[in-house]
Amino acid sequence: MKEAGQSFSVSRLIEEVSRLSGGRLASEAKAGAGSCGVEGFAPLEEAQPRHIAFVAGPKALKAAAASKAGVLVLREEEARAGGEAFAARPLVLTANPYAWFAWASQAMEGGILPPPEAGIRPGAFVDPSAQVDPSARVEAGAVVEAGAKIGPRAWIGAGAYVGEKAEIGESARLYPRALVGSRCRIGARTILNMGCAIGGDGFGFAPFGGEWVKIPQVGAVTVGCDVEIGANTTIDRGALDDTVIGDGTKIDNQVQIGHNCRIGRHCVICGCVGIAGSTTVGDHCVLGGAAMINGHISIPAGSMVGPATPVMSWGEKPEVMTGIFPSQPHKDWERTAVMIRRLPQMRQSLKTLARDVEQLKSGQAR
Amino acid sequence: MKEAGQSFSVSRLIEEVSRLSGGRLASEAKAGAGSCGVEGFAPLEEAQPRHIAFVAGPKALKAAAASKAGVLVLREEEARAGGEAFAARPLVLTANPYAWFAWASQAMEGGILPPPEAGIRPGAFVDPSAQVDPSARVEAGAVVEAGAKIGPRAWIGAGAYVGEKAEIGESARLYPRALVGSRCRIGARTILNMGCAIGGDGFGFAPFGGEWVKIPQVGAVTVGCDVEIGANTTIDRGALDDTVIGDGTKIDNQVQIGHNCRIGRHCVICGCVGIAGSTTVGDHCVLGGAAMINGHISIPAGSMVGPATPVMSWGEKPEVMTGIFPSQPHKDWERTAVMIRRLPQMRQSLKTLARDVEQLKSGQAR
Amino acid sequence: MKEAGQSFSVSRLIEEVSRLSGGRLASEAKAGAGSCGVEGFAPLEEAQPRHIAFVAGPKALKAAAASKAGVLVLREEEARAGGEAFAARPLVLTANPYAWFAWASQAMEGGILPPPEAGIRPGAFVDPSAQVDPSARVEAGAVVEAGAKIGPRAWIGAGAYVGEKAEIGESARLYPRALVGSRCRIGARTILNMGCAIGGDGFGFAPFGGEWVKIPQVGAVTVGCDVEIGANTTIDRGALDDTVIGDGTKIDNQVQIGHNCRIGRHCVICGCVGIAGSTTVGDHCVLGGAAMINGHISIPAGSMVGPATPVMSWGEKPEVMTGIFPSQPHKDWERTAVMIRRLPQMRQSLKTLARDVEQLKSGQAR
Repeated sequence: MKEAGQSFSVSRLIEEVSRLSGGRLASEAKAGAGSCGVEGFAPLEEAQPRHIAFVAGPKALKAAAASKAGVLVLREEEARAGGEAFAARPLVLTANPYAWFAWASQAMEGGILPPPEAGIRPGAFVDPSAQVDPSARVEAGAVVEAGAKIGPRAWIGAGAYVGEKAEIGESARLYPRALVGSRCRIGARTILNMGCAIGGDGFGFAPFGGEWVKIPQVGAVTVGCDVEIGANTTIDRGALDDTVIGDGTKIDNQVQIGHNCRIGRHCVICGCVGIAGSTTVGDHCVLGGAAMINGHISIPAGSMVGPATPVMSWGEKPEVMTGIFPSQPHKDWERTAVMIRRLPQMRQSLKTLARDVEQLKSGQAR
Repeated sequence: MKEAGQSFSVSRLIEEVSRLSGGRLASEAKAGAGSCGVEGFAPLEEAQPRHIAFVAGPKALKAAAASKAGVLVLREEEARAGGEAFAARPLVLTANPYAWFAWASQAMEGGILPPPEAGIRPGAFVDPSAQVDPSARVEAGAVVEAGAKIGPRAWIGAGAYVGEKAEIGESARLYPRALVGSRCRIGARTILNMGCAIGGDGFGFAPFGGEWVKIPQVGAVTVGCDVEIGANTTIDRGALDDTVIGDGTKIDNQVQIGHNCRIGRHCVICGCVGIAGSTTVGDHCVLGGAAMINGHISIPAGSMVGPATPVMSWGEKPEVMTGIFPSQPHKDWERTAVMIRRLPQMRQSLKTLARDVEQLKSGQAR
Repeated sequence: MKEAGQSFSVSRLIEEVSRLSGGRLASEAKAGAGSCGVEGFAPLEEAQPRHIAFVAGPKALKAAAASKAGVLVLREEEARAGGEAFAARPLVLTANPYAWFAWASQAMEGGILPPPEAGIRPGAFVDPSAQVDPSARVEAGAVVEAGAKIGPRAWIGAGAYVGEKAEIGESARLYPRALVGSRCRIGARTILNMGCAIGGDGFGFAPFGGEWVKIPQVGAVTVGCDVEIGANTTIDRGALDDTVIGDGTKIDNQVQIGHNCRIGRHCVICGCVGIAGSTTVGDHCVLGGAAMINGHISIPAGSMVGPATPVMSWGEKPEVMTGIFPSQPHKDWERTAVMIRRLPQMRQSLKTLARDVEQLKSGQAR
């Protein structure tokens, strides 16, 4: 956990949230909140007077009333609903307390990606033909190959790798051991977490006489701006064209994205998801953890896939799709598993019975 | 995507495919194709006159007829079936257009693994007792430990790791940050993609008084020739004996193979597959993406496992096994999930009804 | 596989097992076993006279009787049950042969984590403000950042990374390319396998106007003592508080643990498991391979989750939970999958039939 320390003025945070959100999220200090100073955010239950805490919604109002937080961030209607409990407390009122928290936290951290101290550290290996912006930073053990370009204020972490002719955008950040293969392009402000591998060879082989002939993967990977890619996630380069990740999409750890996939903008892809090759995912889709997506399919914009759900095909419309086997105590599951294998039999018995019952009915009717 | 540029003669490609396939795949130029020059492959729909495109099968004939590709690669019977549309076009005829494409692509890339410029680059750390063939290349940040052997024309990528007494075969390639633990052996022409880890400790612990006692893993990993291992894939070393991967087997990204597994030759293991320890997979098996294979079982040669399929046991015969929960719109799934838990009850109701119906029938008969 | 070589005295092994188990596991030599020398362990079937082999339980007695092993390790009651076959053989008797094997193997390897040759190797990058104990070792290509602390006899492998103010405990081992982010703490004797990433950013974003606002992750990861973490496993840092892994817990390869999880002590988490954020797992739980655990839930101490089982919620009590779709030959599965989607319909037919049968019964009764 972070050490306590520096104090932040709440009125300064209000200004910064407005600035960071491009003026889209307004907020207002009440009951003296503007003149308060805070050291950081904390959950409602753990917050002390030196903390600021946000109220996630009506369900959190009781915890909010009991919280020791110095300042609370909540919606006006919730402050009103709380009545007495919030009348004299230092408050920040805003339409979206959770987003407010996100931006205010960024402000406290000095920006989501504070510009690094510029320079190439000893122990970094930069090919003479690479172009590293003078405001960028390259850490020890990092390797930047021939013809690569590193943009302004980009940060290439310890042991990270930027392949031949790869391009890293302005203010992008590669955490330690992040890997970007040759000719791949990473957009501005994009974050590659530790150990992710962008631009490995796509998995393409032609069968021939019982063996597999490798198809060279000559495409690359194009990652948009403001993307985040999780630790040890892998995104393969395309066979002929590029694999593409759209602007603003957030990808968690241990995700695998196959060659020639096209992922839209502002998607959320949770941990352990696998997407086989040549699949298209539209804008604003959310894929739950460990969802498994077949290759060569198209998921329309705005769709959601539940966690641990296998998706083999998709219709035309956006949907919320789920396919989780309901887990049970092991003994119950043993019975269930047997039943599942007998379902066709059960169906048959049901049909036979229905026919018998029809005959019985007509027998009685006679 | 790759830049356009260099032109390749189609008759040269025909020669190269014959050579690379060991003469097993013949091809023939028609309607002037032999004298054409092409810059590269492209999908039928995107191809321009400077491209060559292959026709994957009868279903692609319509797209092929409409394609602007300068040269088409297809089967003789398909060219005939297409009639008019292909009569005067530059064609390459071959029994297996997909494999032709694979080998011709390799030829265009200068071979699947063109021999690297020899030498140990500045910033590589090679123990004095390691044997590095003079024709091999070791990149910056790579570490080669004591007693390791690097074969002719092998390429040890930036930041890759070759442990004590490990052996890397002729023309093998370790992409950046690929890891090969001590005493592991990698065969000739095998490709280890970025960030894969061969030879981590197997997961072996003896329970004792509520705690877990580590069993040292003193085996290693033996990887055959012409194998490909995907980015961030992990293969553990054996407890006593070695974990073994057979010749020609292709393994995708994010795969986990437990200690003491024995994987056969020419298998395909798709992304996100997990194989628990001590399992044997026969030759020519295909495991679909995210399949989950239990430990201590044996899958016969020639078997297939569907994507996202859990395999807990296997009989004697090769099979195509599937176990995917069919995903549905969330509301439908909620109903289905309830039903699955009630299956034993349903079965019971069915039996009761059947008995009642029998009684009713004998009642009417009376 | 390990080369043969050094011989170990069985009486010395008996002493060492007693010492390593803290005197909790006694063992006794019979029929001259104490004066035997052995070169290593081998499975019963492969063992030669120079090997020692353990008998896992009554089922292994037949193989044990036929084994060529020079010395057998087994329980007294099993030796007795075996009768003749074991009467004159050199034996080690102990209450827990498997744990005996684990500790004796450790003794043969010179301890589970033999203290490394101290020193910072050429090619390691250690910030001048980092504190590296003089008995620790830092390998080539490793990076230790400002303010980090490396404890006595700790071993920082080739290309491993220790972030700013991170702390590595006494005798801990980081295998090559293991990554420990800033401010994370790793306990004594804990093993981080190749390529694991501890302390990547948690996956936290606030939705705002169709986009996702990053929530800075200011917590860290606290890993206890005697923990083992597998190759390419990822454990994210907490949003506000730390993610916590309890003492003695063993985690396999390719596991993903989300931010703010609290994993108890002496758990076993098998390969490919995913645990979403803010979930609590009690002490002594076992999670089978590829189990997928939802976020914000609590799994009581002593619970077990089957392999490939999705867990969306949990009651109050410890349970053995399973949720595996039973796999079948593909054609059978196709029928089953159709049935599963029709379950609500089947249920309805069953109800209709039951009502009809009731009516028929009352009709006959009349």
